[in-house]
Formats: sequence, structure tokens, C-alpha cells
Amino acid sequence: MISATTEVRIRYSETDKMGYVYYGNYAQFFEIGRTNMLREYGMTYREMEAQGIMLPVRSMEIRYHSPAFYDDLLTVSSFLRKKPSKRLEFEHEIHNEAGKLIVTGKVELVFVSEKTRRPTNAPEYFMKEIESFFENE
Amino acid sequence: MISATTEVRIRYSETDKMGYVYYGNYAQFFEIGRTNMLREYGMTYREMEAQGIMLPVRSMEIRYHSPAFYDDLLTVSSFLRKKPSKRLEFEHEIHNEAGKLIVTGKVELVFVSEKTRRPTNAPEYFMKEIESFFENE
Amino acid sequence: MISATTEVRIRYSETDKMGYVYYGNYAQFFEIGRTNMLREYGMTYREMEAQGIMLPVRSMEIRYHSPAFYDDLLTVSSFLRKKPSKRLEFEHEIHNEAGKLIVTGKVELVFVSEKTRRPTNAPEYFMKEIESFFENE
Amino acid sequence: MISATTEVRIRYSETDKMGYVYYGNYAQFFEIGRTNMLREYGMTYREMEAQGIMLPVRSMEIRYHSPAFYDDLLTVSSFLRKKPSKRLEFEHEIHNEAGKLIVTGKVELVFVSEKTRRPTNAPEYFMKEIESFFENE
Repeated sequence: MISATTEVRIRYSETDKMGYVYYGNYAQFFEIGRTNMLREYGMTYREMEAQGIMLPVRSMEIRYHSPAFYDDLLTVSSFLRKKPSKRLEFEHEIHNEAGKLIVTGKVELVFVSEKTRRPTNAPEYFMKEIESFFENE
Repeated sequence: MISATTEVRIRYSETDKMGYVYYGNYAQFFEIGRTNMLREYGMTYREMEAQGIMLPVRSMEIRYHSPAFYDDLLTVSSFLRKKPSKRLEFEHEIHNEAGKLIVTGKVELVFVSEKTRRPTNAPEYFMKEIESFFENE
Repeated sequence: MISATTEVRIRYSETDKMGYVYYGNYAQFFEIGRTNMLREYGMTYREMEAQGIMLPVRSMEIRYHSPAFYDDLLTVSSFLRKKPSKRLEFEHEIHNEAGKLIVTGKVELVFVSEKTRRPTNAPEYFMKEIESFFENE
Repeated sequence: MISATTEVRIRYSETDKMGYVYYGNYAQFFEIGRTNMLREYGMTYREMEAQGIMLPVRSMEIRYHSPAFYDDLLTVSSFLRKKPSKRLEFEHEIHNEAGKLIVTGKVELVFVSEKTRRPTNAPEYFMKEIESFFENE
């Protein structure tokens, strides 16, 4: 398993009239979590895209446990439990500063060739990198 | 079953650098779909909130079938298949103008008292309204 | 002068914890206004981009007169007072259903070649279209 | 003058199909800049709101100098040049990692009583704090 944690400070724009973080915004926090996790392991989305590989999302599941509020400093924990094949499956847990569980969620992404816009395999260097981390567990 | 369809024109702001609609934005389209469905059946979120009932989201599941693009005119089909109790469960399907399936999703909301911020029952007038529609099927 | 009006229903996601529409969201409503105006005059951003012309924003000014609220049906009035050259200058006024002025704003866009990413002239067919409307005043 | 700098990493959601940061999103970066500046000077929006004072935006001006891109690490520099009265006027400059100027902007906010929803004076403790920093220049 590979994992990483990332902090996110809630913006005013991310709240809604209930005073809660709008439910659709957690997709962005998951994105920040997985991007940061890849960066910590020496890989970036940005580079992958520069090499012609895109990673659109195939599915997402979110469970909202407790509301988050303006100015909260949230911790996004991201996990990659399975070695990627044509898909990457991230799990996320978000907690607030008091350690309260805010949301849990799962996001499945697919490797797609920018050129053909069809599913493709994970880039070789990416697989090597990822595998080395799984092996080192 | 109660259902309704709502049109949404994709904004430039809703696209991302892949040229696709960003995956987190569909939560807003589901929101528009269910809000419009309630309105068509003579009920509004706005009034419900004015009466001290909030409807935070408890869970969401989305499956992304095909990308949507800038300026696409999407049709959001929303379904309420079960009578609400303490929860409201909406199902959504989004198609583009060519009839292609873009996403499917399920959103579960809970009735919460604005005062106590605790789960509560659906307002009586709301249940009566909803039940009359289910009976008239 | 060319003008058009466009309706926008306020989404829950667009409100903030004050219960007002978040101040950054009006940029989207201006975008909807000018996109719709071009469409009404037989031109679309989408096509222009397909022809290799992009229209990034160069400057924006907004004055917030009154707050807008969830579920408000706003009317965006958009005006093009000057013939475009290398720039397009839109003025916007947004009112609510009661006719109250919500915001006023000005957005200046520049024609940019997708290929060179440098400023360019407005496409010829676009200028012809626009000029015919100015002449018919 | 009071000033502060804040870093913002560009999210995928903040890009648009041109590959640029969407022009409306800079309002959020200005918000992050001024919130952080107040925090650095020992004050928070959150507390101010808890004390019944809101700070809606009265006007905004933005000039877009160069595009920002996905994954860019931007630096938001925020300045308060005048002592606040019934208004707070922030100036902002945003640069990318290479030191290139991305946008400049000005945001004017007004102190509003949450109760009356009318303009009010800056809270006394806030003015004292702010004044002490201006005096210490």
C-alpha cells in the first residue's frame, strides 16, 4: 500500500448557505490528495499529461460523515492499495483538526491516451516506480 | 416513482484542461436536477429551509460513462423511486444532445433540523405531497 | 450596440455561508451572458475555438450592489457597445426577479491564436457578422 | 502598509479547456490572500463572523497579465495600504514560480452587521490591532 496525507484549508467559496462545505467540493480535495501523493512518490500528473497520458475519473463514491466548516484545516489521507493496471483506485479519508471523520471516498481513474482518447496501459516508468514502492513494503 | 428532466448548458468554467467537464461538477448538476424535480411537484428547497429543515447529502455515487464538453446541452433525468422517510434517495442519469449517456449517479440526503442540527423526519406537508404523487401512479 | 439578456437560476453550490452568492461566481454569469449573446447573433465561442481562436480575459471590473440568494432567477443583460478590434469589451448588468440591481461589470477579452498563443485580429467572418449588426442599428 | 504573501497550488478543477486557470477563480485566490494576511496579524474572518460582523465584497478589479497553469505554485501578495474605516481595501499581486506576474487586483470589502445586514464600523478590537501595525511602520 502507498499512502500520503495532505492539508487543505477550507475557503469561503467552498461553503454553502448551510454554513457547510458544499458536497461537490470534496471531489477537489480528493484530487489534491492523489496529486500530492503522486508528487511525494516522485511522479506528477503534469508530467504524465506532458507525455500524452490523461487520467479521467471513471467512478467516485463518497460518504459524508460530518460537516466541515469555513477555515477548517482538513487532512486528506490517500491510499493506493492495489497495484494499478489500466486503472488506478484511490481511497480517501478526510478528518478535521479535532480528528473527527468528515468524509470517506473512493475514486477510480483510467489511463487514457491523449491522442486516441482510448484507454491505455499505465506508462512503463510509472508502473516501475509504483511497483518499487509496493515491493518495499 | 417520481421523475423529472432538466437541461444544463455546460459553462466554460466547468471544463478542465482535458477539455472535459471536471468530474466534481456533476454534483452540481445532480443538485439542479433534484431541485427542479421538487419545484415541478410544487415544493422548493428554499421554502423547506425557510421552515427550518435542511437537506445535507449523506452519500453520493457517480459513474462516468462518457465525457461532456463545453457548450454541451445536457439533460439531467432525476428519479425518486422510494417514498422518503428520514432520507431522500435520488437517482440521476445525464445524457448529451446526441442521446449519449454521460454519467449515472445516486445521491442520498437526510432531513436535518436547522435548530438542533440533528436528523429529523420529513416535514408533514412534504410527505403528504410526495405520497399523493406516489399514489397517483 | 448589440445586447442580449440571459436568465441564470442560482445554484446551492454558488451560495456561501453568508447566504449570499459568492462574489467570484459572477464571472461565470458574465461568461454565460456573453456566450449567449454571441449565440443569439449566430456565432459561438465553440466554433471560434474550433477555428483556432481563443478569447482569454484581459480585465474585469465588478461592482456589487445587492446580494443575490439561493434559487434567485437572475437576468444577465450584456452589451457590446464598441465594434471589436483586437479586443472585445462586454458590459453586464445583473438584476433579480424583483428588478433590483445586483451587480454591474465590464469584461475585456482579447483574440488569441491557439497556435501561437499571441494576440491576433478577430476572425474575418466574425467581424463581418458583428459589423452588420452595428450597421443595422 | 500591511502585507503578506500566501502560496496557492493550482488545482485541476481550476483550469479550463484552454489549459489556463479560469478567470473567475482568481477571486478565490484573493480571498485566500486576505484571509491569510489577517491571520498573520492575529485576526480571523471566522472570529469576526462569530462576533456578528460580515465582510461582503463591494467591488473588484482584476487585470490578467499572463495565464497560470495546472500545478503552478502561485504566490499571492496582499497589501492593505489604507487604514480601514467602514471599508477595507486590499490590493493583490499574483506571481508564478518563475517570478512572472500573473494578475493584479483590488478588492474592496464593507463591514456589515449580521443582525441588521446594514453597513457598520469595523469592530473596535480590529481597528486597534490594525492601527498598531500601521503605527509600527
